[in-house]
Amino acid sequence: MPRYKLLIEYDGTPYVGWQAQANGRSVQQAIEEAILAFSGETLRIQGAGRTDAGVHATGQVASVMLRKDWTGDRVRDALNAHLTLSDDYVTILAAEKMPDDFDARFSARGRRYLYRVIDRRPPLALERRRAWHIRRRLDAEAMHEAAQGLLGHHDFTTFRSADCQARSAMKTLDRLDVMRVGEEIHVVAAARSFLHNQVRSMVGSLRRVGAGDWSRADLVAVLEARDRTRCAALAPPHGLYLTGVDY
Amino acid sequence: MPRYKLLIEYDGTPYVGWQAQANGRSVQQAIEEAILAFSGETLRIQGAGRTDAGVHATGQVASVMLRKDWTGDRVRDALNAHLTLSDDYVTILAAEKMPDDFDARFSARGRRYLYRVIDRRPPLALERRRAWHIRRRLDAEAMHEAAQGLLGHHDFTTFRSADCQARSAMKTLDRLDVMRVGEEIHVVAAARSFLHNQVRSMVGSLRRVGAGDWSRADLVAVLEARDRTRCAALAPPHGLYLTGVDY
Repeated sequence: MPRYKLLIEYDGTPYVGWQAQANGRSVQQAIEEAILAFSGETLRIQGAGRTDAGVHATGQVASVMLRKDWTGDRVRDALNAHLTLSDDYVTILAAEKMPDDFDARFSARGRRYLYRVIDRRPPLALERRRAWHIRRRLDAEAMHEAAQGLLGHHDFTTFRSADCQARSAMKTLDRLDVMRVGEEIHVVAAARSFLHNQVRSMVGSLRRVGAGDWSRADLVAVLEARDRTRCAALAPPHGLYLTGVDY
Repeated sequence: MPRYKLLIEYDGTPYVGWQAQANGRSVQQAIEEAILAFSGETLRIQGAGRTDAGVHATGQVASVMLRKDWTGDRVRDALNAHLTLSDDYVTILAAEKMPDDFDARFSARGRRYLYRVIDRRPPLALERRRAWHIRRRLDAEAMHEAAQGLLGHHDFTTFRSADCQARSAMKTLDRLDVMRVGEEIHVVAAARSFLHNQVRSMVGSLRRVGAGDWSRADLVAVLEARDRTRCAALAPPHGLYLTGVDY
């Protein structure tokens, strides 16, 4: 049975998150329903990153095994036709046939996220569900400088959700860049994998640096405390985008 | 009584358009309700451009006269507080005191619009209500070259809505630039004023050029025909942004 890699874009606003849940429509469910409509198969797809409710993706990846041997383009177009019919904010950017041992989650060697902050006094209209609104101007350079203190192999317990299911809090953070892009601040994070809520936790704490409340040393002390209660308030989900998964 | 100029951003998706109407909530109504909540005054504001349902703005301008002499910043912050409470996708970017003869509509010397097209095979997820999706790749350079044939003073009857209320169809088009920006095509239009649906009509016809169906000469012949039936299908409202008004 041929195995496919799906590259997926979605607006997380109307969904309970990536993962199928009893309390509402998930992105996974939308795609699984499209597969059922297309190929008649009821099956579970495996996603590379389990994004929370409201989190967006421009480069989520999922793997799926189908009974018939379709071309990748045929799978992409057929699933998109059904996702359009079901009025979902989910699109398959590409579908590609893969070797049998490909698994979107376990084969992944890296995940990349973008977090968008807009720091201006007026509230957001167009970007209201797409970026985190901070009413005061932040110091993006100070945020970037402090962020470099989190790079490397650490126990990220401080920046981990209470309901994180990972066995270990040891992770290696490869990249955490903060840059001003026009009216916005972009935080780009890359690692082999992240703990649940890790990016939003780190961005929430970087905000304290940008506001002048914390120094780089304060941020590093918070990391080294390995204490969830030392983390600043979590950045909201709607500023976060899963932008890519590397294999 | 002091007069104010409001600079306004909105997501047009949930509104029936700028103008107050019986059949649903308008952007104008949202702002007028915020003014009522703030100053206790029931009044009508004047907008520079009457955007249709689904059309967005990053630089709409409206004028309003208030009884009390507030600072501009106070007006901006108070209206935004009420627009947040009413859960509107409308924000006041700036409020400024103006001379008594200022009128957002009649004092305007120019209006600028952006039209966003995304030409790719997969449907849009994140930009679904923000850009026009065209499934085939368009030739942006050919579109730009042809667009230059519409510049200047002409009878724009071809590119005018059947229910346009302007007395004359004579308008001067100052700028119509088409450029590729990453994965998108941006059409930037500027004129003292536009006919109803003029930008969407021109973009709809430029698409025929981009697809290779029409040459520049065909586009100019369509303009010179002064015949609405010669216009290509209208570009949809959700790709259009009123980006600025000049005084």
